[in-house]
Amino acid sequence: MNGVDGADDRYVVGVDFGTLSGRALVVRVGDGAELGTAVHEYGDGVISSALPGGQVLPPDWALQNPEDYRDVLRYAVPAALSTAGVDPAAVVGIGIDFTACTVLPTDAEGTPLCEVPELRDRPHAWVKLWKHHAAQPHADRINALAHERAEPWIGRYGGKISAEWQFAKGLQVLEEDPEVYHRAERFIEAADWIVWQLSGTETRNVCTAGYKGILQDGQYPNEGFLTALNPGFGDFVTKLDGPLLPLGARAGTLTAEAAAWTGLPEGIAVAAGNVDAHVTAAAAQAVEPGRLVAIMGTSTCHVVNGAELAEVEGMCGVVDGGISPGAWGYEAGQSGVGDIFGWFVNHAAPAGANSHEHLTELAASQPVGAHGLIALDWWSGNRSLLVNHDLSGMIVGMTLATRPQDIYRALLESTAFGTRMIIEAFVEAGVAVNDLVIAGGLTNNKLLMQIYADVTRRPLNIIASAQGPALGSAIHAAVAAGEFPSIHEASQAMGRVHEAVYRPDPDRARAYDALYAEYRTLHDHFGRGGNDVMLRLRAIRNAAVETAATTSELTLEVVA
Amino acid sequence: MNGVDGADDRYVVGVDFGTLSGRALVVRVGDGAELGTAVHEYGDGVISSALPGGQVLPPDWALQNPEDYRDVLRYAVPAALSTAGVDPAAVVGIGIDFTACTVLPTDAEGTPLCEVPELRDRPHAWVKLWKHHAAQPHADRINALAHERAEPWIGRYGGKISAEWQFAKGLQVLEEDPEVYHRAERFIEAADWIVWQLSGTETRNVCTAGYKGILQDGQYPNEGFLTALNPGFGDFVTKLDGPLLPLGARAGTLTAEAAAWTGLPEGIAVAAGNVDAHVTAAAAQAVEPGRLVAIMGTSTCHVVNGAELAEVEGMCGVVDGGISPGAWGYEAGQSGVGDIFGWFVNHAAPAGANSHEHLTELAASQPVGAHGLIALDWWSGNRSLLVNHDLSGMIVGMTLATRPQDIYRALLESTAFGTRMIIEAFVEAGVAVNDLVIAGGLTNNKLLMQIYADVTRRPLNIIASAQGPALGSAIHAAVAAGEFPSIHEASQAMGRVHEAVYRPDPDRARAYDALYAEYRTLHDHFGRGGNDVMLRLRAIRNAAVETAATTSELTLEVVA
Repeated sequence: MNGVDGADDRYVVGVDFGTLSGRALVVRVGDGAELGTAVHEYGDGVISSALPGGQVLPPDWALQNPEDYRDVLRYAVPAALSTAGVDPAAVVGIGIDFTACTVLPTDAEGTPLCEVPELRDRPHAWVKLWKHHAAQPHADRINALAHERAEPWIGRYGGKISAEWQFAKGLQVLEEDPEVYHRAERFIEAADWIVWQLSGTETRNVCTAGYKGILQDGQYPNEGFLTALNPGFGDFVTKLDGPLLPLGARAGTLTAEAAAWTGLPEGIAVAAGNVDAHVTAAAAQAVEPGRLVAIMGTSTCHVVNGAELAEVEGMCGVVDGGISPGAWGYEAGQSGVGDIFGWFVNHAAPAGANSHEHLTELAASQPVGAHGLIALDWWSGNRSLLVNHDLSGMIVGMTLATRPQDIYRALLESTAFGTRMIIEAFVEAGVAVNDLVIAGGLTNNKLLMQIYADVTRRPLNIIASAQGPALGSAIHAAVAAGEFPSIHEASQAMGRVHEAVYRPDPDRARAYDALYAEYRTLHDHFGRGGNDVMLRLRAIRNAAVETAATTSELTLEVVA
Repeated sequence: MNGVDGADDRYVVGVDFGTLSGRALVVRVGDGAELGTAVHEYGDGVISSALPGGQVLPPDWALQNPEDYRDVLRYAVPAALSTAGVDPAAVVGIGIDFTACTVLPTDAEGTPLCEVPELRDRPHAWVKLWKHHAAQPHADRINALAHERAEPWIGRYGGKISAEWQFAKGLQVLEEDPEVYHRAERFIEAADWIVWQLSGTETRNVCTAGYKGILQDGQYPNEGFLTALNPGFGDFVTKLDGPLLPLGARAGTLTAEAAAWTGLPEGIAVAAGNVDAHVTAAAAQAVEPGRLVAIMGTSTCHVVNGAELAEVEGMCGVVDGGISPGAWGYEAGQSGVGDIFGWFVNHAAPAGANSHEHLTELAASQPVGAHGLIALDWWSGNRSLLVNHDLSGMIVGMTLATRPQDIYRALLESTAFGTRMIIEAFVEAGVAVNDLVIAGGLTNNKLLMQIYADVTRRPLNIIASAQGPALGSAIHAAVAAGEFPSIHEASQAMGRVHEAVYRPDPDRARAYDALYAEYRTLHDHFGRGGNDVMLRLRAIRNAAVETAATTSELTLEVVA
């Protein structure tokens, strides 16, 4: 027991709200032991083609049903408690993390507008999931105006606000459904909304307010900026503002209603909301500056604390206390990682070689550079450093002797090179990155892990928990319940990491330096204006597909 | 009948010696009707790992057994005659074409040195097949010295002599097996050697002498040049020189021995030798300037006649009368075409999409540019215009939505762009290219043919014969037999082509112009020094593989 008296008979619950499901995890306060877990799949999942009532959605939309989130509390939490065999009376707190920016309009009491009967058939009344990408034109206008007016906050986001974030999504609501916009007394992150559901108290956590809203140095963008975007947008901040809480703070206590849903005792601590990636740092014992956490799955999210403020070009954002209080939290990301490997296995690997296991086995025996290939890992665009989702993938070096495992290995390596680009951008801007902690599903691939150690020339620590975000939320719950004085102590006691599981091999690291130099040259050539062929090919593709669709429609009309 | 009296009861035989087999074709003189054909596979095929006697060969070697060529005369010719049901007494001539540069050392009587018992176990005594690639260092020295001395002939070969050609192969023999070199009284193209076997007369045809030897304006490279390469190489031309014959000339008459092999009448005309690609022009009615023949199979060879001499950078060669007398014959090529499509189907297409037919069907319905991809078609290096076999393939534009048919179509298009580069280089140098005749196995792919018409903005004619080279050889035989005054008349009467089967579609051609501009930019960037990443990746690959091999050997030694 790490100095918490009697903490071996007290428990906390962490709930991780993902894209398709929510997971609850019961954790012992004293040592972070994971005693039981359960998952609840969202009934409506990702709503991308039509509302449950049948209203068709335009392309690039992605909505969710807030009732699915309540169902996670109703079903996953009791199931996890039951599996853990823990007396619910011994649970002292609950914490949650959420995808972000996942955001919804509500009335002043927190009722989602999609639950107001007369607005239920209005798409803009529903939760906009993080991957709702239909607000790109609004984001473009926000960015252009921010640079035009030299707004001080734009540098904190690497020079670009994402189409996924609150202000872009809010502006889209205003301009496409003004009635919903005006009925929305609150516009709130799902992370903060579920905390409101649990505690009956509206709060805003500094993490989503900073990274997904535009809260910097205590200020949102001013009214002049907002009215310049649209005269009706000047009041947007009044819908966002609320009691701002640092991470690990207690947002309130569990209401009787939420106690009935979850089976937990009324009155226990409810922690401030958090984001899935950022909360993982606590579970990975990575809240000290210099230790970067990479959560590697279909995409990768990188978070690292820094002692000083630095503006890093092309990063997602830097937020004071955004990962843990008392440090500047930096976030970066790669939009496609596991997704690219999956694409290869499903769409580019011949029969007999179409499994990750087999391709990895074949690729593992190759000396560095023996396949003669370099790839740019932009199948899903580039989130950092180039912040351009119209960039695309590239492979160079194929011969008639190139085999599937060669390309597969080149794809693994390309994502490692992408991570090294991000690390170097941090380091050049003065943000130390001494070692990495890897979390997420891709930690299972030992070849991939060794490649990351060799390419980044840094030791790789591996998170010991298979449920990093949920464990991180439980740690925040323990802090909110007063079990630890800070996230640092709680992380030390309850987080778990296997140290230096992979160390860079000097020979392979040297060999990768040469390939990385090639990657970097290609990265800058195709990504920084040397040859904008990727952007032109995208435009040609979009025009060709659109023309074909129009022609088909015309043909249909003629036929009709 | 095309003005040849009684030619409907006279016949000629064409024999096409390929890489793995030889084909005989019996053709009616009057109208070129193909009456019977037969193939004989070479018993020893391509000898690349060990001689029949067991002597192991180094990497990149490719030899053949000359007895296999005689067997084609013994088996394929009688079988074709039998299939044709033609009275052998009605056959008036025989013509042949061969792969090139396929070359062998013989004594003064034409006996191959590999048939001299005491030399049979010496690799350099055997036939060096065109794709014997072990003389690259020798070619490099020839090219460097030619430029250093500003030899006038080097410009006729686009600035580079290939490692496949006579002088590189001859220099390799001298330096690696001087005894064989000195015993070789003659060093002769297999095309001329088989004519010698048929007629008992040693001749040299202008086609191989020009394109594969270095005979320009009646001169081979001078002794000073050769002794500067190696003091012992000064006599090389004496092994090459012989009675030089224009194409379509009569080399001699069929000997009693060859008549016994073939079942043909002794004393009939034997035409001068020829190269498979070049002889196809006659079969394709494409001996007039401005009509380019593309023989499209695993690779593509382009031949076109021009009225004037022009030096075209990066072309394989220009030879006076090299395709037909009275015109300058130009040759260019793409080292990988069908080979690349085959690579994709075998090594990069998932189950269910791994057939040319299915991929073509899926790709055919796409509007131009809808896949968003561009490829550089250098999986097997670049023969023209860049003349560099260390270049490699590239694809740009992949997204998670990219499907196998998208990449397949991009590969088809990339080879069409490569052909357009060659055509434009000809045109810019003053060699007209008005339309194309396509021959070879790839004519079966209608989508590919339409893409070539659209990309090149030229009508595509398709050769009507499935046996273009053998028919071309038969046409040359008819000229040698005096049935026609020239190849032009014979080609008109006996060749067959379907005119303008594919015409460029203006909309698609316009759309392809934009993609071709992208191809050209990438071609020059990766091929002309903008970024030599392909060459560096090749060097890294070779070093990695070599180090691995050395390490394995060392490991084995340690274990042993």
